[in-house]
Amino acid sequence: MLTGDERARVSVVLVRARNPNNIGAVARAMHGFGFIDLRLVNDYSVGFEKARSAVDASAILATAREFATVGEAVADCHLVIGTTAVGERKQEHPLYRLAEGGRIIRSRPAGSGVALLFGSEKTGLSNEEMSHCHCLMTIPMHPTPGLRHASMNLGQAAAVCLYELIRDENPITAEAKQQPPASAEDLERITDLIERMMTGIGYNRHRPASADPAEVRRMIRRLGLSQSDARRWIGILRRVLWKLNE
Amino acid sequence: MLTGDERARVSVVLVRARNPNNIGAVARAMHGFGFIDLRLVNDYSVGFEKARSAVDASAILATAREFATVGEAVADCHLVIGTTAVGERKQEHPLYRLAEGGRIIRSRPAGSGVALLFGSEKTGLSNEEMSHCHCLMTIPMHPTPGLRHASMNLGQAAAVCLYELIRDENPITAEAKQQPPASAEDLERITDLIERMMTGIGYNRHRPASADPAEVRRMIRRLGLSQSDARRWIGILRRVLWKLNE
Repeated sequence: MLTGDERARVSVVLVRARNPNNIGAVARAMHGFGFIDLRLVNDYSVGFEKARSAVDASAILATAREFATVGEAVADCHLVIGTTAVGERKQEHPLYRLAEGGRIIRSRPAGSGVALLFGSEKTGLSNEEMSHCHCLMTIPMHPTPGLRHASMNLGQAAAVCLYELIRDENPITAEAKQQPPASAEDLERITDLIERMMTGIGYNRHRPASADPAEVRRMIRRLGLSQSDARRWIGILRRVLWKLNE
Repeated sequence: MLTGDERARVSVVLVRARNPNNIGAVARAMHGFGFIDLRLVNDYSVGFEKARSAVDASAILATAREFATVGEAVADCHLVIGTTAVGERKQEHPLYRLAEGGRIIRSRPAGSGVALLFGSEKTGLSNEEMSHCHCLMTIPMHPTPGLRHASMNLGQAAAVCLYELIRDENPITAEAKQQPPASAEDLERITDLIERMMTGIGYNRHRPASADPAEVRRMIRRLGLSQSDARRWIGILRRVLWKLNE
């Protein structure tokens, strides 16, 4: 997982992106995942201007910088990674699956800038543009036999790539605020109430195996009841028994 | 990583999605990552019709199914996971980071259907819709001090979630000899029986908060019932109701 400082050294570079919705979506994903440096390489910047003037444009778009060439856009970076769809593979470059590329980015020494290049919606990165890259990274897609290879849109591809950089393998926010579990005493109380209820409804006679006390006890333990849920069930079961015996 | 067969048992359920571009983007991400089963819950299906008739609509949209309610949409699924933005957190449900939720989904026994719910673009999942879920999953986002929390669009969120399911290089083997879990349909049957029982014993009048339908639904989902235990409870509850109404 990249820390905040480390995220600041990752630059997202959009090369010839034209659709303002896509540019806006990339900015939203960056904002959501805590990345701040967006760069655009454009010979035609109408899309960028439109995205920047959209109502929900983020601070990222306001501070995004435009460059005339890929070379200028990545000049201060130490590792340049191009993203590519499977099938666009160029033999000249090492190609990594996204998860592997993510590990490479995370393992870079502090202070080294990383540029993540995304090509145009229609054609991806050109040969010339790719030549600025140290390596290529691809989102593993699923080939569907007989169907044209589907690609996600630019906003989706950027979201998936950035997610990989911040997805953390280790810390798990377990069931935060886990409920305290029911005591054995409460569970036994429930077991007893269920048994009496089964007797009351004649279940024992019909399904003796299912009504076997040890089996009922196991079944109640399998429920993994919390203390508060156990109390609630006790209240319900008592009323049921009371009604059955009326 | 999920294999092809395993991907077939993951259903993506869009609840009240309205924007055809978003629906189309979700379908493209599914296609790209090898998922096939898309379900829509709609009171207003214009967005879906538009998405389906788009030039680049995928086979997934052609076979997508519409349902009137969340309950019907997930009836044949055994694990229902709601996606939520941070901040929408409901204390009643276990909440997992996406990576952890992905592990849970991958570790499910073969043959158990998993539904992944996405709420509407504007409001996410409602309380009632969430009450059908066993747990919630969230994409870890980065809080930016002083700025409104940015969220990605529906197409991006779905792409990131589905990527998480297929990214793993080291497949996790399911826990050995796990009991097949109860289907959502059986859980809903139990919910209904419990509610009728509560009415029969006058519990609603005494403890209206505990008898709230959404709360009862959540309480039943917390039990983690296996298929065979669920069937047994259904048998018991039916007899209880029959006796109560004698």
